[in-house]
Amino acid sequence: VLVADARVDLNSDLGESYGQWQFGDDTAVLRSVTSANVACGFHAGDPSTLRRTVEEAAGSGVAIGAQVSYPDLLGFGRRFIDMDPNELIDTVLYQIGALEAFARVAGVQVTYVKPHGALYNAVVDHGSQAAAVVQAVREYDDRLAVLGLPGSALLRCADEAGLRVVPEAFVDRAYTPRGTLVPRGTPGAVLGDADAHAVAERAVRMITEGTVTAVDGSKVALHAESLCVHGDTPGAVEMAAAVRRALEDAGVEVRAFTT
Amino acid sequence: VLVADARVDLNSDLGESYGQWQFGDDTAVLRSVTSANVACGFHAGDPSTLRRTVEEAAGSGVAIGAQVSYPDLLGFGRRFIDMDPNELIDTVLYQIGALEAFARVAGVQVTYVKPHGALYNAVVDHGSQAAAVVQAVREYDDRLAVLGLPGSALLRCADEAGLRVVPEAFVDRAYTPRGTLVPRGTPGAVLGDADAHAVAERAVRMITEGTVTAVDGSKVALHAESLCVHGDTPGAVEMAAAVRRALEDAGVEVRAFTT
Amino acid sequence: VLVADARVDLNSDLGESYGQWQFGDDTAVLRSVTSANVACGFHAGDPSTLRRTVEEAAGSGVAIGAQVSYPDLLGFGRRFIDMDPNELIDTVLYQIGALEAFARVAGVQVTYVKPHGALYNAVVDHGSQAAAVVQAVREYDDRLAVLGLPGSALLRCADEAGLRVVPEAFVDRAYTPRGTLVPRGTPGAVLGDADAHAVAERAVRMITEGTVTAVDGSKVALHAESLCVHGDTPGAVEMAAAVRRALEDAGVEVRAFTT
Amino acid sequence: VLVADARVDLNSDLGESYGQWQFGDDTAVLRSVTSANVACGFHAGDPSTLRRTVEEAAGSGVAIGAQVSYPDLLGFGRRFIDMDPNELIDTVLYQIGALEAFARVAGVQVTYVKPHGALYNAVVDHGSQAAAVVQAVREYDDRLAVLGLPGSALLRCADEAGLRVVPEAFVDRAYTPRGTLVPRGTPGAVLGDADAHAVAERAVRMITEGTVTAVDGSKVALHAESLCVHGDTPGAVEMAAAVRRALEDAGVEVRAFTT
Repeated sequence: VLVADARVDLNSDLGESYGQWQFGDDTAVLRSVTSANVACGFHAGDPSTLRRTVEEAAGSGVAIGAQVSYPDLLGFGRRFIDMDPNELIDTVLYQIGALEAFARVAGVQVTYVKPHGALYNAVVDHGSQAAAVVQAVREYDDRLAVLGLPGSALLRCADEAGLRVVPEAFVDRAYTPRGTLVPRGTPGAVLGDADAHAVAERAVRMITEGTVTAVDGSKVALHAESLCVHGDTPGAVEMAAAVRRALEDAGVEVRAFTT
Repeated sequence: VLVADARVDLNSDLGESYGQWQFGDDTAVLRSVTSANVACGFHAGDPSTLRRTVEEAAGSGVAIGAQVSYPDLLGFGRRFIDMDPNELIDTVLYQIGALEAFARVAGVQVTYVKPHGALYNAVVDHGSQAAAVVQAVREYDDRLAVLGLPGSALLRCADEAGLRVVPEAFVDRAYTPRGTLVPRGTPGAVLGDADAHAVAERAVRMITEGTVTAVDGSKVALHAESLCVHGDTPGAVEMAAAVRRALEDAGVEVRAFTT
Repeated sequence: VLVADARVDLNSDLGESYGQWQFGDDTAVLRSVTSANVACGFHAGDPSTLRRTVEEAAGSGVAIGAQVSYPDLLGFGRRFIDMDPNELIDTVLYQIGALEAFARVAGVQVTYVKPHGALYNAVVDHGSQAAAVVQAVREYDDRLAVLGLPGSALLRCADEAGLRVVPEAFVDRAYTPRGTLVPRGTPGAVLGDADAHAVAERAVRMITEGTVTAVDGSKVALHAESLCVHGDTPGAVEMAAAVRRALEDAGVEVRAFTT
Repeated sequence: VLVADARVDLNSDLGESYGQWQFGDDTAVLRSVTSANVACGFHAGDPSTLRRTVEEAAGSGVAIGAQVSYPDLLGFGRRFIDMDPNELIDTVLYQIGALEAFARVAGVQVTYVKPHGALYNAVVDHGSQAAAVVQAVREYDDRLAVLGLPGSALLRCADEAGLRVVPEAFVDRAYTPRGTLVPRGTPGAVLGDADAHAVAERAVRMITEGTVTAVDGSKVALHAESLCVHGDTPGAVEMAAAVRRALEDAGVEVRAFTT
């Protein structure tokens, strides 16, 4: 059964270079996505990278979100840090503000917040860190949306706070029969680049049917308003493009959730 | 001859703690000043220090300025870095934006920019770095004022760009007969804590007469709309208070230049 | 019953300034202690601070240990970071080596390792991080001792690896009836500066009787070869001096455990 | 005229990844060079990268040098920082020591020091920074060699201090008629990847004839005991291999200068 008037957002992590070090092909992935989760300098993204990324995204009509992180360049934000929630609030505010400066220069605005890496994983369950992220968003601008994992403490807390919540699904990650992600590191947790076609079909079913096939072959219900794609390898860029084409071919409108 | 309707701003560097490390007595100095040059995290000032400083300044009715710096926590921003001007533009934008987040939460706005330390000294003469700071301010918000040294490339460039420029004088620094600062390190370059009374009188003459007595005893003309005071030692806090009292006793209105 | 030939080491955290930011009175505390846990730049301690601290300690005949930490200047190493054990091994090696350069210049050697802050607390229970610290010490030089909490995974693991282990007690911390530390944050967990005399007596009993009075008034057995004192406040410096005097008055030899 | 018993070292910058960010193909370039200038964490090189690089170099019989830098990850050490010479001494010591830890674990030793990037350029002329680098090397171990530009203040100062100095030439850089490097940024300053054959012939003449053809076509005398090659692009890796083959084909012995 096709969902009438189906639409979805495609989001991707961008701006994750740092100084001399390049990461990912932002220009290529911006051709496929509708929302850019821009690194804010705490796990990646020096000021000039922020500027270039925001300008390029704005020029492509792609929405700008703050991809906020623990302060951990060395670990690329992928290590849990047991931060005091009050310090986390301020850390998130600092990052949103820094990114907003470049949005302002580009004539646009930061319209949502998505935690990165270990913080993303932490706020699935860690109530006080989830509440800290939500509190930062509320204090900064309660019109900002919060992008995160369906069923996470983050989205629950954001919803209770009256913020707009946007649940996302991952086109290249395996799901358990309960609808949660198979943890990275487990064999088969990440669907390889070779499966661009299969991944694209999977993405279409996520939106048109609201389901995903779990690792045990069962069909699991899934409600996602955004799909996360990657751009850090040539294969990933190709996969993102395939996902977009397949969605549009299936009659799904691919549009930023903030528009 | 007294200047009728004399007024002046008192500014000080604030928010220069970092994590566990405390620096200066911000609460005390906020009782004397009208403008707070708040560190933005690049030479000092972690996110929670920024928040606390901005909230306290806002609560005291003190204007908030971005004290922008080279990225150099280890050197406290006191070492010249030969940054590419384009990277400097973005570095300044990043800092203003980060600080603005906390101003926004506190219900106020960043109203001016003052370079810190080695950047302050560099933009006296370094044309392309001065232009970079000015460009950042213009791009961010051309209603922001620029606080700096009279006669500096920074103020010249800001003026040409149509920005509001605010020349400042230093109450506790010795001046040459040409009206420039005696370089730090030269004996007598900094007037000691013991001279609070003399310093306060000197501050009054700077504003009511528009002059300062140079190291050779000559009187030099000086146009300052703001006086810079310090709060990093108990003596400095006392000196700041003495300066304010003396100015008010002399009939000078002490008020933020942005009001 | 007095322990014949009683001796003990006094250790303290030193070199915890960073650039412009000062922390503690190292010169004063070096007059009381016999082992200096020198910060290695990851939670505190810039290169010049390392040098000054090592030179001063070496000049006072105080043993040099590497106070290794998570990489977290902003959090002063007081926040747990879920580091990969292999990365932790290398992080510890890097710090020991950096400190060794200054020991070498001062004509001495690093003779032990003590984890700092959140890492200290983590390796009480966190087996793989404890094993990582031990592995780093073994790889670097298996003649280095490991200083830590009695009963910790760290000391167990170091002992199994054939390293010399040195259990320590805290003169200014409250103990539970089971001989563990009352967690910081619990009222009464830290014995205040006012109790310098009581703390000194407590320290003496720790060594001469091998006991400490727990928070419920019970006497608990305690085996410590080193006592940790602090120097970050004037009261702490005074307490350290009082502890040393009391130990010596009681006939306890105060000497570095590495001598 | 061929130089009898000609020999030369080939050096390259290695270990310049940082956390998640990869840089260059160290494994490939290690097949061509005899000395590895290993980044020490201040412009690049996290602890695990240092370890991996040192182990791989040691396993290939390649000599280990400390590629010391200003503290500037964001700028990749390519921006002049006006550091106090005493702080620079300690900064260099810190880096050598950190690297030595990994050499020790790999069963080898750091045998030379080469400044990186902006520091390399600064110590060509900047007397007090050059003296600081030399002082650090002397204090650490006066058997370490210093690798640098012929005619630089660094090599002069190192020579006066009794250190072994090793002058190097750049196989892929254009030279002026005076024998200095054409500044980067000038058109033609860097010889492109396409010229691997020409570059290799040029390298051979540098060693067998002791000359290089300058940009104006004139032949300039050049004394180099080491040739610097790069490995940061596939073309650079190929060029390094071509240089080595050509040298060996010409009967030049390619061997670490420290052996």
